Amino acid sequence: MSNIDIPQAVQLFKNDLSLVIIDQTRLPQNLQYLRLTRLDEMIEAIAKLRVRGAPAIGIAAAYGLYVLAARDENENLLPSLAYAASRLIEARPTAVNLGWAVKRMMAVAAAHARTGENTQGSARAEGPPDFGDGAVYVRGGQQSRERLLAALLAEAEAIDNEDKQLCQAIGEHGLTLLKPGCGVLTHCNAGALATGGIGTALAPLYLAAGRGWQVRLYCDETRPLLQGARLTAWEMQRAGIDTTLICDNMAASLMAAGRIDVALVGCDRVARNGDIANKIGTLPLAIAAHYYQVPVYSCVPLSTLDADCASGADIVIEQRDGGEIGELWYAEPMAAPQLCGYNPAFDVVPAELITGYVTERGILKADELMAPARP
Amino acid sequence: MSNIDIPQAVQLFKNDLSLVIIDQTRLPQNLQYLRLTRLDEMIEAIAKLRVRGAPAIGIAAAYGLYVLAARDENENLLPSLAYAASRLIEARPTAVNLGWAVKRMMAVAAAHARTGENTQGSARAEGPPDFGDGAVYVRGGQQSRERLLAALLAEAEAIDNEDKQLCQAIGEHGLTLLKPGCGVLTHCNAGALATGGIGTALAPLYLAAGRGWQVRLYCDETRPLLQGARLTAWEMQRAGIDTTLICDNMAASLMAAGRIDVALVGCDRVARNGDIANKIGTLPLAIAAHYYQVPVYSCVPLSTLDADCASGADIVIEQRDGGEIGELWYAEPMAAPQLCGYNPAFDVVPAELITGYVTERGILKADELMAPARP
Repeated sequence: MSNIDIPQAVQLFKNDLSLVIIDQTRLPQNLQYLRLTRLDEMIEAIAKLRVRGAPAIGIAAAYGLYVLAARDENENLLPSLAYAASRLIEARPTAVNLGWAVKRMMAVAAAHARTGENTQGSARAEGPPDFGDGAVYVRGGQQSRERLLAALLAEAEAIDNEDKQLCQAIGEHGLTLLKPGCGVLTHCNAGALATGGIGTALAPLYLAAGRGWQVRLYCDETRPLLQGARLTAWEMQRAGIDTTLICDNMAASLMAAGRIDVALVGCDRVARNGDIANKIGTLPLAIAAHYYQVPVYSCVPLSTLDADCASGADIVIEQRDGGEIGELWYAEPMAAPQLCGYNPAFDVVPAELITGYVTERGILKADELMAPARP
Repeated sequence: MSNIDIPQAVQLFKNDLSLVIIDQTRLPQNLQYLRLTRLDEMIEAIAKLRVRGAPAIGIAAAYGLYVLAARDENENLLPSLAYAASRLIEARPTAVNLGWAVKRMMAVAAAHARTGENTQGSARAEGPPDFGDGAVYVRGGQQSRERLLAALLAEAEAIDNEDKQLCQAIGEHGLTLLKPGCGVLTHCNAGALATGGIGTALAPLYLAAGRGWQVRLYCDETRPLLQGARLTAWEMQRAGIDTTLICDNMAASLMAAGRIDVALVGCDRVARNGDIANKIGTLPLAIAAHYYQVPVYSCVPLSTLDADCASGADIVIEQRDGGEIGELWYAEPMAAPQLCGYNPAFDVVPAELITGYVTERGILKADELMAPARP
């Protein structure tokens, strides 16, 4: 893979204690890195989708909390950390990985506090949010501070590295679905820009490129936010992959012409029965693929499985502002705002339309998703 | 229908001898009428899609030829008419109705020439194109000129009126598919802006509005040219119809939610077996409708039937410039040009996905399309 260009959406710069992200709102025009050191900058970057993709957001928040702590001049880091944690979570309340990563970081802080040697009082009195871990936040001395920072750094790096390994494993399993010369369809961006590693749905394509396979990728532009055009097509072209950007409504004609061998998509949530919620437009893709007998795989870490959802009917779909349909990106508005009253961020694909789930444990069928991990 | 606002895409202004069109490239921002009196203006308007929609183009060319003839100061109108006819046809060579309307007008001219009383020589020597009618174009006197102009006007008005009647008949048959409160999906623009009358796929909606029915219309934006957003949504909103503009990839989720009762689409060409070519994106719409058992009707004058096409496989699909995907409408390009190598203007929907064909003869099944008209 050494010759393949893989964008790094999120990085920790240890030397100058900064969180460095690719500003994804500037793509594909400009590859611009943002150096973030303050909480308000991090919140803004997450809220404005400068960093996006569930795993990438989680990693950014984890490194961000470390950066904030390391730059904090107070002896006791915990009150500011707790405040930052709650503010970061609010930046995109529906992003599951964001809350999950922040809670992992705060659990480290809480564990540190419980074992802190220089207990001088409770920071809880100063009003940090309760992370539900029952910890009493305490002040520590310099030695304690360094230990906490080391633990926070280790946890953030673990979150990042675990995601890199997940991507790699999904990529290797997914690679078995490809062969040189095949035609692949994807939707939205489940690539390096969305994760700490080589993505999920795009991971097999990076690995194929690394082997020198010529794979034809067709990339849905993914209205209305155009993640396919702005992010996936950009990222795949840089990786040297033969990429054709299409409008979402063109995929069916490619299937009819026999030019698509497999469709690889990401996933935002999997219900127990295998129904998935993914970016709006995944459903018509899957229906057309079903009609033309093109296999559709959802590439997804098993952490995306929501055991509380029996089926897709339980998944609440985020409705976004209609201005994204009528006005966003355009030089002039294309439709009056009152016309744009339906803008779901996701649709639900029934399990019967999903050929398989490419996970870190291998390619599973719907009824294998809930099975315990094999030893 | 008196209270319903129906845009007139093409009009003849007899008093000042001009062809007046709505500049559809300025919609939805500006409703701007263009007054055309010169051949170069008419060619530009057709080539740049200021007037578009097969019937509307044909009507514009017919009125345009009349305007040019009426403004021609030469005693013999035929050489300039023949020149204008050939130039107009070249403005959009794949538009079937354009060639058809121009040939009807030139057949009138040729018939006039054959019966002209003041035969003074053949205009053919001056090199007008051969319209295949075997006519010898002749010069006539002032009386002959007035007669020719009257015949050209009558023919152009006949072309316009016939189209208005087709639209009305299709609308009345299509209205039987709707009921108050129903949800309708459409794609692209097969409305008043595309025809001389109330459109084809939108004709039933105009008639429903005229009856005061509350119908919910969902309108695909229709990437990449956005005819749905710019034209259909604009036109339907002005007619007082409850219109929701959606991205093309959102229709399936509406069907899954049971919000679409029927899909009405236009048609650019029908093959003998009932396969249709229509605007790109009609195929995935029809596949999703099939999956959710939503009926799909193609609203189409029988003149659109191409008896030379046995099936959709015989229909040659126009490939358009990729810049329409990556750059058109945007404030900044969304993708590099080399990524945009697939941009078919149409896709082919197999007959098995079409519930019926709403024609001026009624709602037909695929195997009834080729049957002779009932007496």
